[in-house]
Amino acid sequence: MATVRILTDEELSPEAAAVFADIRATRGSDFVNNIWRSLAYDPPLLKATWERVKTVMAPRDGGLDPLTKELIYMAISVANGCQYCVQSHTAMARAKGMTDAQHAEFVDLVMAASSTNALATALQTPVDEVFQVK
Amino acid sequence: MATVRILTDEELSPEAAAVFADIRATRGSDFVNNIWRSLAYDPPLLKATWERVKTVMAPRDGGLDPLTKELIYMAISVANGCQYCVQSHTAMARAKGMTDAQHAEFVDLVMAASSTNALATALQTPVDEVFQVK
Amino acid sequence: MATVRILTDEELSPEAAAVFADIRATRGSDFVNNIWRSLAYDPPLLKATWERVKTVMAPRDGGLDPLTKELIYMAISVANGCQYCVQSHTAMARAKGMTDAQHAEFVDLVMAASSTNALATALQTPVDEVFQVK
Amino acid sequence: MATVRILTDEELSPEAAAVFADIRATRGSDFVNNIWRSLAYDPPLLKATWERVKTVMAPRDGGLDPLTKELIYMAISVANGCQYCVQSHTAMARAKGMTDAQHAEFVDLVMAASSTNALATALQTPVDEVFQVK
Amino acid sequence: MATVRILTDEELSPEAAAVFADIRATRGSDFVNNIWRSLAYDPPLLKATWERVKTVMAPRDGGLDPLTKELIYMAISVANGCQYCVQSHTAMARAKGMTDAQHAEFVDLVMAASSTNALATALQTPVDEVFQVK
Amino acid sequence: MATVRILTDEELSPEAAAVFADIRATRGSDFVNNIWRSLAYDPPLLKATWERVKTVMAPRDGGLDPLTKELIYMAISVANGCQYCVQSHTAMARAKGMTDAQHAEFVDLVMAASSTNALATALQTPVDEVFQVK
Repeated sequence: MATVRILTDEELSPEAAAVFADIRATRGSDFVNNIWRSLAYDPPLLKATWERVKTVMAPRDGGLDPLTKELIYMAISVANGCQYCVQSHTAMARAKGMTDAQHAEFVDLVMAASSTNALATALQTPVDEVFQVK
Repeated sequence: MATVRILTDEELSPEAAAVFADIRATRGSDFVNNIWRSLAYDPPLLKATWERVKTVMAPRDGGLDPLTKELIYMAISVANGCQYCVQSHTAMARAKGMTDAQHAEFVDLVMAASSTNALATALQTPVDEVFQVK
Repeated sequence: MATVRILTDEELSPEAAAVFADIRATRGSDFVNNIWRSLAYDPPLLKATWERVKTVMAPRDGGLDPLTKELIYMAISVANGCQYCVQSHTAMARAKGMTDAQHAEFVDLVMAASSTNALATALQTPVDEVFQVK
Repeated sequence: MATVRILTDEELSPEAAAVFADIRATRGSDFVNNIWRSLAYDPPLLKATWERVKTVMAPRDGGLDPLTKELIYMAISVANGCQYCVQSHTAMARAKGMTDAQHAEFVDLVMAASSTNALATALQTPVDEVFQVK
Repeated sequence: MATVRILTDEELSPEAAAVFADIRATRGSDFVNNIWRSLAYDPPLLKATWERVKTVMAPRDGGLDPLTKELIYMAISVANGCQYCVQSHTAMARAKGMTDAQHAEFVDLVMAASSTNALATALQTPVDEVFQVK
Repeated sequence: MATVRILTDEELSPEAAAVFADIRATRGSDFVNNIWRSLAYDPPLLKATWERVKTVMAPRDGGLDPLTKELIYMAISVANGCQYCVQSHTAMARAKGMTDAQHAEFVDLVMAASSTNALATALQTPVDEVFQVK
């Protein structure tokens, strides 16, 4: 149950329709998922958000590969407790080749990190001087 | 200012000293950072936690490389707002070869994910049926 | 699926019924939403919580208007990932006049804040001395 | 202690210097705070982030006033536990006229929202059908 | 809608079946809840996670009783906004004797803690020197 | 560095001084910690917050003992990443008799809960029907 209406293709403004066309062209797929349909009530925000996501997921100077990017996206989404984001980025990671073994390795890592995050916060461990960036 | 005492090597129990020896051997470095020193007041928990972290960061079936693992660890730590964890894992990622360009690409991705996490939560976007695992 | 029973009007204790009567009188509406019905199993906590919410949403010295208050409530609820709270306060904000353009502006702001929050945490940016309160 | 170097004006690349010039012109102040100095190691990300913040804080269709925007930014920052963000946006809110009474009203609201967020999550209160957007 | 398949008893590998047998023996009940069924696709992670939970919930040196442990587990789960965890640990707490009055006292405490957490973060209250551990 | 001034006893308004007197009387100690001093700029909010905390920490129907309450408070504070709250409630728990073994047991539990919270969120495990409250 969204807090806004989920628009169908027929309900899109011309500006929103243009963004949907670019999503389809960029992904090479006719399917447009609900996050874009729920944002379509505000075409400028839809456009700005899509441009942002497209840019950040495109090949960049740092050279992080597409699956690594999805795993980082999944990690943030799990820690933020975002149901939609966990679901959609896990599906996208699978579409980009994530195996069951990689998923299990990711889940184990996320559990370990969440656990030691809680540890450091509970103990209020002071940061080591050696970590200082010169 | 920790909520427990940060132990020096001289103050360790024999069980804690054995864990510190394994940390040094595994990492090939004499330096033992504060998270382990703050946990040393409880040797069984120290040992269990170190074994867990050692296992999860070791090569595994999924084949995630060491730097990718640090980036996932960093992502969780940022989203959980854990200062010590962000500092220590950023330092470890640099030690494992993270470049400035990779760090910037990571930061940009973390910002985009945090942003769209908030978007999906604010709009309460329903999960697409197509994401269903068969 | 609640972790407690959602009480109907017929199941209320006299103390809980009195709180429901005040909710209805204060809001000028017969509708009592589920958060109160789920809390009705403990009348003192129901009463204390309602008194607290009523006080904080009433006109105060600071002079924040009712819609601004709902927007702040929504912002906290999004960042905390509270589904019920996002849904209920978005509905209340609309009832208090929030337009689609205001909702979009709010969503954009929440996205930007979540993004720069992650940035400052990832970079561990030190607080500027000039922000010091005198 | 940042995870990156905090650059002085003398250390900026031409691209970063151009962004700093725009920050100064937009704000009518020579002071550039640390969030921008910590991001200056990556000029494109610095530029994109500043453009984003400038746009979202500028007057918009929704008509939210500058102080309301700062209060929403503060709310998100508190809920995300971002120290730098709470400090900087509280300072900016004061600079935009936030009074002590408004700050207290904000703090009270943030406390109440955090409290009822926890309540709804603890009780897993189901969303009322009436909140459905038509 | 899980991001993995929820396995039935018939679909378990021998390693996973052995863990399920231990869960049943330890709890004295034939029922195995979904968290274990969703993790059963990776038997080593299933085994490691179950061993961890079994150990932490067993009687220990600190002497925390089973209900206190469930209440702490519930508190963490509420603050992390984990729906499944709140639901399952509230059910387990009831199974271990939690009364309605205890639940209400717990909920009230969680609300107060969430509220003062937000307060301390909003005000950025400095830690008192007297809290220093000697 | 607080976002408000930390008031000394000499700077208190009569209303704030009365609250400080009650804090001292209730706790049987002359020491008043910074959370109250940072809130003293708004006497009504100071008074309401103190009354709330005093009530929730007092003996109640549920019968939770003082140390259990501090542990729950600590758990929420760790999960919310509230530095001041972790520090102050850990100190208070020690003052109420928390032993090193209890602290270690608490920390281990918090780590396990944080870890399985992340697990359930990553796998999006559906809630078992059997947890339904009748």
